[in-house]
Amino acid sequence: MANAAPIAIVIHGGAGMIVRGKMTAEFERAYREKLEESVQAGYRILQDGRGSTEAVVAAVEVMEDSELFNAGKGSVLTHIGSVEMDASIMEGKFLNAGAIAGVTHIKNPIRLAMAVMEHSPHVMLIGEGAEVFSIERGFEQFDNSYFRTERRREQLLRIQAADGDTALSEDMTDVIDSDIDDKKLGTVGAVAIDNKGNIAAATSTGGMSNKKYGRVGDSPIIGAGTYADNKTCGISATGHGEYFIRTAVAYDICARVSYKGLSLQAAADEVVLDRLKGLRADGGIVGIDSNANVVFSFNSEGMYRASIDASGGLMIKIFAD
Amino acid sequence: MANAAPIAIVIHGGAGMIVRGKMTAEFERAYREKLEESVQAGYRILQDGRGSTEAVVAAVEVMEDSELFNAGKGSVLTHIGSVEMDASIMEGKFLNAGAIAGVTHIKNPIRLAMAVMEHSPHVMLIGEGAEVFSIERGFEQFDNSYFRTERRREQLLRIQAADGDTALSEDMTDVIDSDIDDKKLGTVGAVAIDNKGNIAAATSTGGMSNKKYGRVGDSPIIGAGTYADNKTCGISATGHGEYFIRTAVAYDICARVSYKGLSLQAAADEVVLDRLKGLRADGGIVGIDSNANVVFSFNSEGMYRASIDASGGLMIKIFAD
Repeated sequence: MANAAPIAIVIHGGAGMIVRGKMTAEFERAYREKLEESVQAGYRILQDGRGSTEAVVAAVEVMEDSELFNAGKGSVLTHIGSVEMDASIMEGKFLNAGAIAGVTHIKNPIRLAMAVMEHSPHVMLIGEGAEVFSIERGFEQFDNSYFRTERRREQLLRIQAADGDTALSEDMTDVIDSDIDDKKLGTVGAVAIDNKGNIAAATSTGGMSNKKYGRVGDSPIIGAGTYADNKTCGISATGHGEYFIRTAVAYDICARVSYKGLSLQAAADEVVLDRLKGLRADGGIVGIDSNANVVFSFNSEGMYRASIDASGGLMIKIFAD
Repeated sequence: MANAAPIAIVIHGGAGMIVRGKMTAEFERAYREKLEESVQAGYRILQDGRGSTEAVVAAVEVMEDSELFNAGKGSVLTHIGSVEMDASIMEGKFLNAGAIAGVTHIKNPIRLAMAVMEHSPHVMLIGEGAEVFSIERGFEQFDNSYFRTERRREQLLRIQAADGDTALSEDMTDVIDSDIDDKKLGTVGAVAIDNKGNIAAATSTGGMSNKKYGRVGDSPIIGAGTYADNKTCGISATGHGEYFIRTAVAYDICARVSYKGLSLQAAADEVVLDRLKGLRADGGIVGIDSNANVVFSFNSEGMYRASIDASGGLMIKIFAD
């Protein structure tokens, strides 16, 4: 296509103490396959000349539908054994955004966040209000049991038996569950730039294991878990949500690009490696700048991540290098 | 007190099309009296050498308890005639924060936001989860009818009769209701700096008239409606919440102070007079920087506001000058 701007997409499936050699080959293969399926789903849309919003939603949906990630089906369980999900999406062209928090019946929360952005005058809807909106918009209502898996039930029981003792994360027999989700780092997200130069970012999560009913982390907070501005960058974050809210992670990275003139990588590293690390806040981000540069930054041992950059190169990684 | 840093406090009670000569003398006097009561309540705490968090909560509580403002008692009514309230608070020393959204039984939502900050591991609790937390913390539960006033009921009926037609705001017979609240600008907030140089910011609201159940604006969003960082400034915003979320107003002002080296007034004016005005988003902010400079900025015709600055000077204003 003549004059088409470069396209690129980057995704994450959560960050945490993911250490090489501690993960079974089977689990690793399953994660790699699903990350590739997700990033390819988004990339195909970009290749077709369609928009970045559609691309990030498609990528996130693949992870929401997979039990491997803490979003949609397979979300972690709250204190009372239910699933409550949050999601947000933002478009960089006009700074449009949509977010939902505390939904319990929507198969793909990211699609509901998109509906809030596109079909409501509001940016954020929570709880039953969000569910009422979803019914008005014709979203199929899923029983909460659809989202709950045996793996998450066992995880909740283990955490509750330990009465919140995070020493559980030392138990490497189940490093995936015990670290990423116990420490609130389980989230999925995607950022893409389409051939019109429009950036979109999306984030979806089941929140943190054993969370109290009603807790909202950074994922549905525009400026914390998600931000996109064509002039600077798009960001999707994953990490200890409370700290990510308090430091406005996603917006702060864009602000450093804009006001300090930093590259996206430098801005992201300042926030993730310096500012967040200084607060002992674990996690990371994926991002794309207005020149279609793909960026990762995380201060945890690993982050499930994949990208297809402007040259078409596919990258899938789990551990730190 | 030796070596004590200067103290100051600034409050707002909403921004909108408040035009001199269109407001009855009786209403104007009532607003001025309540604004003074609020700012003095916070200032006395600062004079006693106590902290800025306590000061902003005290100031906000006065406005929550008054029917004049869209927060606590006298909050605007949702689509279904109920009251749903949101609030947030942040401390600039360690970036601690607390927020609640969609509560219906708490007399002073700002105090519940403070309890989330001080007594929960979370930053944000929503809906019934926030209410359960309030019960655990011993908060008295008020019947939702406590918050509903005849004035708001008439306002809702008027808006619904017009089926959302904002032409109502042209009706100057009730300029206070029809503009500030119909246009989602009704909010209260306070920012203070204590004699240890600690900045705190707080915001509380009943949201927008006739809002759909579950809508959350910028007031409970850390980074949008409220932000505080001792290194830069504290901000409480009031305005069209959806735009304030999409532009991360409170954090953006702090970021411009930090990264661009602007004065707080210049940073606030860039965001409120340029960026927000460019998006046709009405509203404003109050703020205090780390040198105890008090700042107002609004792009609407007026903003209910008051301050006591570092020299002890009291200012109470409603209209633009």
